[in-house]
Amino acid sequence: MAEDDAGTLSARASASAVEHSSAVFWLTGLSGAGKSTLAFGAEKTLKALSYRVCVLDGDRLRTGLNRDLGFSEADRMENMRRVAEVATLFADVGVVVIVALISPLAEGRELARRVTGRRFHEIYLAADLGTCEARDPKGLYRRARAGEIAGFTGIGSAYDIPLSPDAVIDTCSKHAASSVADLVTYIRSRIELR
Amino acid sequence: MAEDDAGTLSARASASAVEHSSAVFWLTGLSGAGKSTLAFGAEKTLKALSYRVCVLDGDRLRTGLNRDLGFSEADRMENMRRVAEVATLFADVGVVVIVALISPLAEGRELARRVTGRRFHEIYLAADLGTCEARDPKGLYRRARAGEIAGFTGIGSAYDIPLSPDAVIDTCSKHAASSVADLVTYIRSRIELR
Repeated sequence: MAEDDAGTLSARASASAVEHSSAVFWLTGLSGAGKSTLAFGAEKTLKALSYRVCVLDGDRLRTGLNRDLGFSEADRMENMRRVAEVATLFADVGVVVIVALISPLAEGRELARRVTGRRFHEIYLAADLGTCEARDPKGLYRRARAGEIAGFTGIGSAYDIPLSPDAVIDTCSKHAASSVADLVTYIRSRIELR
Repeated sequence: MAEDDAGTLSARASASAVEHSSAVFWLTGLSGAGKSTLAFGAEKTLKALSYRVCVLDGDRLRTGLNRDLGFSEADRMENMRRVAEVATLFADVGVVVIVALISPLAEGRELARRVTGRRFHEIYLAADLGTCEARDPKGLYRRARAGEIAGFTGIGSAYDIPLSPDAVIDTCSKHAASSVADLVTYIRSRIELR
């Protein structure tokens, strides 16, 4: 864009951009509970409604920002800390953030809440181990049962079911589309238009 | 917002939001060269023109995402890697990113370019050591000369002047407002309106 286009842009922009508050919607649940499916599904719906939204997906971040981390308890905490810090940076510029991260330990989720502040919403994707293991979308439960993955959440390491989450979404008995709609409804109820 | 407000939002939004491409503008230079001043100055101007923009400031990130890192060469590289990863996440959702980070080593800037991809712009804030040391806005040069800070860039460790930066901004002989204007002009010339 050339310098003398400045007027055009500011004119186009000033009457226009959708303003809304921001927050961090932190999806926690077992592998296979539907975190990524719900996060990306809700993102698509919200984008179509012109919300500024981003997904911070645990699996994807492990190929980028968190590629240096393993699955020890310390590394999982550091993983959560970094995701919470990045979520905060996004929320600070007005983006609605959806985090999809197993977040097995209550202590880790509390750390994320402390870092993120009042904008943090803990959303528990309620699907029991049996259901998640039967789904096993990435074949990880099978490998964990075969002893190929140590400390897999639900098999070799604990998942602390949230005691007082901000929302619970049933991803066990409902279809995915219905759970996505529940998440969108919750997010929209917590984001103010300005 | 209640569910039945949905129509209002999508109507408001669809005809409106300013769409533009995104990129990462990576300001490198000595402490005191004006990186934060230019970054936040340009951010203010661009926001007033309704660009979506964020600043990733090295000093601020060291109180958050990078608080676990020191100033060894390995930690500085990790610092740059993380900032580049986060910058990429922001660019992926259409935000114009301005990074303000000393980034002393050419190797580190190349790492950042690899992580960020084609959207990376290396911008050298040209102010010589004598000028920066005379400014010494945070009193760090004085402390480095007194031996209180080891490995301070320009005193105890090297700053590799960029050999082929995408832009050079004179922050030595010009006033800050003029340098900010130069940065804004460069950024706007590299961001497409859609």
